[in-house]
Amino acid sequence: MGLFIKHAISEAEKGLAEGGIPIGAVLVCDGKVIGSGHNRRIQNGSSILHGEMDAIENAGRLASSIYKRCVLYTTLSPCSMCAGAILLYKIPHVIIGENTTFMGEEELLISRGVKIEVLHDEHCIKMMRDFISANQGLWSEDIGE
Amino acid sequence: MGLFIKHAISEAEKGLAEGGIPIGAVLVCDGKVIGSGHNRRIQNGSSILHGEMDAIENAGRLASSIYKRCVLYTTLSPCSMCAGAILLYKIPHVIIGENTTFMGEEELLISRGVKIEVLHDEHCIKMMRDFISANQGLWSEDIGE
Repeated sequence: MGLFIKHAISEAEKGLAEGGIPIGAVLVCDGKVIGSGHNRRIQNGSSILHGEMDAIENAGRLASSIYKRCVLYTTLSPCSMCAGAILLYKIPHVIIGENTTFMGEEELLISRGVKIEVLHDEHCIKMMRDFISANQGLWSEDIGE
Repeated sequence: MGLFIKHAISEAEKGLAEGGIPIGAVLVCDGKVIGSGHNRRIQNGSSILHGEMDAIENAGRLASSIYKRCVLYTTLSPCSMCAGAILLYKIPHVIIGENTTFMGEEELLISRGVKIEVLHDEHCIKMMRDFISANQGLWSEDIGE
C-alpha cells in the first residue's frame, strides 16, 4: 500500500483513538505531505471539519498554483462538502481508500475533470463498518442524514 | 430589506473592519438565527472558513431535522465548497445578496432541489467590487483562481 494512504489511515486511527469518527486525509504536493487531518466532529464539536477539510485547513493558505499540483488522499469517498472544497481549489487528483460504506460525490468530481482512484481497501472498509454499526446516530449526523 | 440579510451584511462588514474579506452569512431556523459568521481567511489564516462555512460551524453540531428547516442567508453567491456544505446538510433554501461580482454554484444547487433567491443588492455588490478592486490577489486566493 502507498505511503500516503497509510498516512491518511493513521490519521483516521488517531481520530478513532480520540473518540472521534475514523476518517483521515492527507494533502500531498510534489510528493510531500503539506497538510494532514482527520474528522473532528466530536473532538471540536465541529460540523465542517471532515477529514478532508481538516487536511486542507491544516495545509494553511495556499496559492491556486499549489493546489493544482496536489493529490488528496482520503480514507473515505468525499461527501458533497469535501468534494466542493476539492472543486473550489481545483485539486486535480483524489485517491480514496474506499467507497463501500459511503459513496460520496465521485460522479460530480469526475464530471468536472478530477481524476479519482478508489483503492477498495479492506482495512478502511472494516474501520468504517465497525464504527458505523456502533455509532449509527453519530454517523447519520456526520453525513446529514 | 429583510432583517436576516441585513444581519449577514453586518457580518460581512465586521469581517471588513477586522481586515478580512467582506462576506457574511446567517443560518436561520424557524425564523431564528442559529448561527452567523464571516469569511476568516485573513483573521484565522483559514482556507475553509468562508462566510457560509463559518455560519454553519458557529451553529454547532445539529441533527439533519434542524438543517432541513433552515434558510441560509449569504451576502455572496456560494462557491463550490459552501454549496457542497449546503448539499451535505440538505439546507433547502438559500438567499443570496448578490451574484454579480462572483457567480457560485447556483445551477448545481438548483439542480439538486435547493431553492435559490438572489436579491441583487447594490450594497453587497459595491462592498465586493470595492474589496476585489483593492485586493485582487487575495480575492483570487479565496476563490482558488
